[in-house]
Amino acid sequence: MSDNNVSPKMTLEAIKYTEGHLKILNQLLLPTETRYQDVKGVKDGWEAIKEMKVRGAPAIAIVGVLSLAVELSQKQFESKGELLTFIQEKLEYLKTARPTAVNMKEAADRLCKLTEMLCERNDSTVETIRERYIQEAEAMMDKDVSDNKNMGHHGAQHILEHCSEDKVKVLTHCNTGSLATAGYGTALGVIRALHDQDKLDHAYCTETRPYNQGSRLTAYELVHDKIPATLIADSAVSMAIKEKKISAVVVGADRVVANGDTANKIGTFQLAVVAKYHGIPFYITAPTTSIDLNLGTGDDIIIEERKQNELTTIKGIQVAAPGIDCWNPAFDVTPAGLITGGIITEHGVFKPEELNAKLENYEINKKHKC
Amino acid sequence: MSDNNVSPKMTLEAIKYTEGHLKILNQLLLPTETRYQDVKGVKDGWEAIKEMKVRGAPAIAIVGVLSLAVELSQKQFESKGELLTFIQEKLEYLKTARPTAVNMKEAADRLCKLTEMLCERNDSTVETIRERYIQEAEAMMDKDVSDNKNMGHHGAQHILEHCSEDKVKVLTHCNTGSLATAGYGTALGVIRALHDQDKLDHAYCTETRPYNQGSRLTAYELVHDKIPATLIADSAVSMAIKEKKISAVVVGADRVVANGDTANKIGTFQLAVVAKYHGIPFYITAPTTSIDLNLGTGDDIIIEERKQNELTTIKGIQVAAPGIDCWNPAFDVTPAGLITGGIITEHGVFKPEELNAKLENYEINKKHKC
Repeated sequence: MSDNNVSPKMTLEAIKYTEGHLKILNQLLLPTETRYQDVKGVKDGWEAIKEMKVRGAPAIAIVGVLSLAVELSQKQFESKGELLTFIQEKLEYLKTARPTAVNMKEAADRLCKLTEMLCERNDSTVETIRERYIQEAEAMMDKDVSDNKNMGHHGAQHILEHCSEDKVKVLTHCNTGSLATAGYGTALGVIRALHDQDKLDHAYCTETRPYNQGSRLTAYELVHDKIPATLIADSAVSMAIKEKKISAVVVGADRVVANGDTANKIGTFQLAVVAKYHGIPFYITAPTTSIDLNLGTGDDIIIEERKQNELTTIKGIQVAAPGIDCWNPAFDVTPAGLITGGIITEHGVFKPEELNAKLENYEINKKHKC
Repeated sequence: MSDNNVSPKMTLEAIKYTEGHLKILNQLLLPTETRYQDVKGVKDGWEAIKEMKVRGAPAIAIVGVLSLAVELSQKQFESKGELLTFIQEKLEYLKTARPTAVNMKEAADRLCKLTEMLCERNDSTVETIRERYIQEAEAMMDKDVSDNKNMGHHGAQHILEHCSEDKVKVLTHCNTGSLATAGYGTALGVIRALHDQDKLDHAYCTETRPYNQGSRLTAYELVHDKIPATLIADSAVSMAIKEKKISAVVVGADRVVANGDTANKIGTFQLAVVAKYHGIPFYITAPTTSIDLNLGTGDDIIIEERKQNELTTIKGIQVAAPGIDCWNPAFDVTPAGLITGGIITEHGVFKPEELNAKLENYEINKKHKC
């Protein structure tokens, strides 16, 4: 796909990489301070992940494997065995930074196996193995960005084809941009693609309580990229759709299951209900790596509950009545029937009911089925 | 109506009054500190209103007129003329504390006229006029509380008759309790009535961003009254209705117009959309003083927009990305068709479409039509 319309200089890059050099935007300082910091090796990468200077499952994995690529590019090894042990130990170490980050574990296991396999080959050398690791790590980042740009392209096209306006107004929820991925973003990538094509009238983002990913992170990206945008309270969505004449709602996904039911940030379910009430399309944006055809319906998804103090305190200040019980589910499940626009993937936009059939054609999904 | 089931000792009293003595709960210190302060006269009352130690239109008016009652009970007057001038001046002064608080203005004007009329009567004395003013001020408080208890009774009965459960789970939004009225509350009064009758399984309250009336004030009242209750994010409502099996949604109203369309705190509209999606009844609780039959539909209601910094800062701390534009409507309008449970008034629970006919029977509403 051509990226001719994309102006990369304007797009926020939270991960900046060239061979031997890695910088990340320290997300702990956002939204009030923009400071990049060098990741000079695995120790820096581990700390950045542990301290949540980088967050979002794909971004964590990419910073982890790239931090090892940076270290490998500077270090000398006497033998293939020494190199293999080094890579194995560092990848195991990286997995301990945030043990629940499954993408980091998957990437580490895959790169371990690859390195072992390469070491066993007679024609490999320290140099070819090292180069191959670096290439694989870089490819992970490139693939995530290109998948996101493809989703942006497909999503933007679909929205424009199905809306009567020449320029559209899109509402999104949570953060699904450069700050959660290797770059460009998923749902926010769709908004970026519309903006890049001069087809975005206005973006609306919700606060996304209780962790404020919308007001802190999405708003930061929108301001950075000079995308015309407005922040609203989570409870102002219905009023905004009516008064501001929003064209479509586009959000990300934590997991899409076989029937199209989708787990995503708490609030997504009611956004979909409200979008349907107003008769505007509701889209999920999900790379095929987030689609799990092993689970039949949303009822099979276990919802994580987060700490009560996310609701009762902000930056350590008590904001709710002491003693009140809280219920703080991290995600909710949107029934497939409410996903009226479609599920935007890197391969195209699919109706929930056609997801199974469409994804059969793609290699990437077969891996998921195993 | 009998209040036999009500246990007043448990119910939060934000305004405590006995003749000659007035105390208010300083709402600026909530939810972390519970401190009552004396209101010894009009100056104290004016300051409490001005500084927002007391808030909510009915509560402001009641504290204002009671502060004058306290002062009158302690002061000597030489003549009816001196008393009249004193009352006139003090009521005018009280109107300046928060000029937009229409209930204070209406109460002041009514009490001014009453005092003038009494002074003109030959059989009146300083003592009878003073007593009458004090009685009228006390009656305002008593009427607000008794209207609220009647709403609580009617609302609780209606919910119990229309739900299949023996005990119900009710969700509310914003603060409509003792902290916004003379006592007991409107929508929160319905929850109190259910609890008093041992028919409340659980109450759920939303945070009510951006001003957090739910997490700060409603949660405070629920904890105070030992009502089983849980706080949720505004965006968790759809998930809560599904997972926690909530029976009904009950909220207050800023204004109900002739066709039943209702202006209330931002977020009410989408609560009603979500309640309808889940097939549970949605109730508005509104004393007839909040019903304005002069306006035909919700389109005639002008929506106030509040400051952007309510969304971008909390207690002075920047929480949103600097430079982001915000849209912060204070209210939204819920179409009558979504008010599936009914409109709970002190005279009974009415369907939006029967509001006009039902209210014709009541004196209080005729005043509104003039």
